[in-house]
Amino acid sequence: MSTSIDLAVIPGDGIGPEVVTEAVKILKAVASQTDLELKLTEYTLGAEHWLRTGETLPEETLAAIRQHDAILFGAVGAAPGDTRIPSGLIERELLLKLRFSLDHYVNLRPSKLYPGVSSPLAAPGVVDFVVVREGTEGPYVGNGGALRVGTGEEIATEVSVNTAFGVQRVVRDAFRRAAQSERKKLTYVHKHNVLVYSGHLWKRTVEAIAAEYPEVAVDYLHVDAATIFLVTDPARFDVIVTDNLFGDILTDLAAAISGGIGLAASGNLNMDRSAPSMFEPVHGSAPDIAGQQKADPSAAILSAALLLDHLGQPELAARIETAVEADIAGRASLGQRTTAQIGDAVLARLG
Amino acid sequence: MSTSIDLAVIPGDGIGPEVVTEAVKILKAVASQTDLELKLTEYTLGAEHWLRTGETLPEETLAAIRQHDAILFGAVGAAPGDTRIPSGLIERELLLKLRFSLDHYVNLRPSKLYPGVSSPLAAPGVVDFVVVREGTEGPYVGNGGALRVGTGEEIATEVSVNTAFGVQRVVRDAFRRAAQSERKKLTYVHKHNVLVYSGHLWKRTVEAIAAEYPEVAVDYLHVDAATIFLVTDPARFDVIVTDNLFGDILTDLAAAISGGIGLAASGNLNMDRSAPSMFEPVHGSAPDIAGQQKADPSAAILSAALLLDHLGQPELAARIETAVEADIAGRASLGQRTTAQIGDAVLARLG
Ligand SMILES: CC(C)[C@H](C(=O)O)[C@@H](O)C(=O)O
Ligand SMILES: CC(C)[C@H](C(=O)O)[C@@H](O)C(=O)O
Repeated sequence: MSTSIDLAVIPGDGIGPEVVTEAVKILKAVASQTDLELKLTEYTLGAEHWLRTGETLPEETLAAIRQHDAILFGAVGAAPGDTRIPSGLIERELLLKLRFSLDHYVNLRPSKLYPGVSSPLAAPGVVDFVVVREGTEGPYVGNGGALRVGTGEEIATEVSVNTAFGVQRVVRDAFRRAAQSERKKLTYVHKHNVLVYSGHLWKRTVEAIAAEYPEVAVDYLHVDAATIFLVTDPARFDVIVTDNLFGDILTDLAAAISGGIGLAASGNLNMDRSAPSMFEPVHGSAPDIAGQQKADPSAAILSAALLLDHLGQPELAARIETAVEADIAGRASLGQRTTAQIGDAVLARLG
Repeated sequence: MSTSIDLAVIPGDGIGPEVVTEAVKILKAVASQTDLELKLTEYTLGAEHWLRTGETLPEETLAAIRQHDAILFGAVGAAPGDTRIPSGLIERELLLKLRFSLDHYVNLRPSKLYPGVSSPLAAPGVVDFVVVREGTEGPYVGNGGALRVGTGEEIATEVSVNTAFGVQRVVRDAFRRAAQSERKKLTYVHKHNVLVYSGHLWKRTVEAIAAEYPEVAVDYLHVDAATIFLVTDPARFDVIVTDNLFGDILTDLAAAISGGIGLAASGNLNMDRSAPSMFEPVHGSAPDIAGQQKADPSAAILSAALLLDHLGQPELAARIETAVEADIAGRASLGQRTTAQIGDAVLARLG
């Protein structure tokens, strides 16, 4: 029985293409080691593409991407100083448009402090948790507006939209993961003492679904307190579930304490499989080091592992993760390596 | 020339009364050392008070509090498990009501890693910055709603409201502080790639006011990236200005990296002096250790120092800060002390 996987690849801008090259290298290698047939279609999108063509994500391109089994995504975004590109345009019209159009309601972001990786924390302890970040609603819906712009009377609003449907499905997903984890612990994070309407929807939803998972210990933290525990006691976390914006903030902090965003992988999951899921490193396009082979491709490679896991290939995913972990463990004694050298080193460890 | 200060004191719940007792002890001591006349009026408010009376903050009490020169606030909030009190009620109807009614638009939160204090960071470097958190708008305005509550069709919204008036005054305050600081650096934090309406209001406001302060170096960070730098390079920060919710999150993290919320002081400032400003430790009421003399009163004492500074007594403020700093520096060799013992030790160092 041979399996085939049809992937869309969106390298993007900055260091995106460099790290995606290594992730693809690894995917091809594991495929060739097994009876996995890998088909790759590259889509040129991002800030550079917009500058050339004025296109962010045309409907036909989105329709084409929709046909694939999954998406491997690099990074997008212009250099911060680049005034030719409206700030955030590419992020919203490409990255967030993909997440929203393809209904990526589970933004899965594991945090693991691998042996040999140094954390900015003096005594991190065991860092091994996963954040289930809601991906399709909250303050990310783009429901805002402004009046009297540019005057002293300007008023600007942002509306966070939260639905029972949206909160239930992501909370349920998080409980499922917590029930399958060893520690069986779920921490939900919000700010329900201030954001009462959305907060109480989250609270009631968690409490209702908790009744179906008596084996899962449930804990609540305000988002501000959660940042404290992430630096004072990250070992307390197993599965965290939270809204889109809080998840954005907490996962960058989580990446930082577990060795940096160069190692943080993520999956934007459509758990109903009505559209392809998308896998991307948490880091951005890092224009300052782009094209210099300075980027660490580990996050992109680990994202490819999440992709295989999601597509029903957990053994192949584990093989990649083990190789990356071994590479990381041996790093301290090595000097600076290029992006490709790290990819090759992981490749060599695939066995 | 004798000066008199007429203070409202709101000890609140949990450890609030214990830490406020020490702060008052210190205020009385510095007053008696100088020609400062101190008048104190205590207001019994908080979760306990609500349980007894059903009152959060009656209009007459608010009117009375308004007459004082400043407010010293302990902490409020019920125990997390206490189901008799609707979650967040006291926080919103008392603490936030005070901040909003008294127009505390600058929520000033200094972060300083004092010598002798251990940080969870392995190599924190010099941590000495101040967060200017907007205090009267943003997602804290309570403008939300919910439809079809409790059904599968529930929808809950939260509206962040931001005005040119509100953003300008807090950004201007932050620039003023940055211009007076040694490093003259201002970092503004938002998420303007996603929250475009409020984000662009902040961006344009910062850019416009920056032109008036050519001596201040201005830097922008997305809130997620800001959390990374707070743990990897906190020394880069001098003055941070940000919105109400981002400020809430960042200041808890900032407190954590600089030795914990037991040391974090804050001022809720009405810089126009149209109403009294309020000074409070960043920590909460910590019901688990309440009444046990286990709380560290340093944050409350440092908040009293901010109060004196705000009321035009910078030398007295500095005297208190020096005493607290000396006490902290000598801590490592001491065992566990009670709340009162720490207060007495600071008192002894006032000279
Ligand atoms: C680029 C940006 C829109 C994005 C987000 O805010 O979700 C990024 O920060 C992330 O975490 O993937
Ligand atoms: C208690 C709560 C309403 C408050 C806030 O969110 O502002 C607290 O977290 C703070 O930072 O002072």
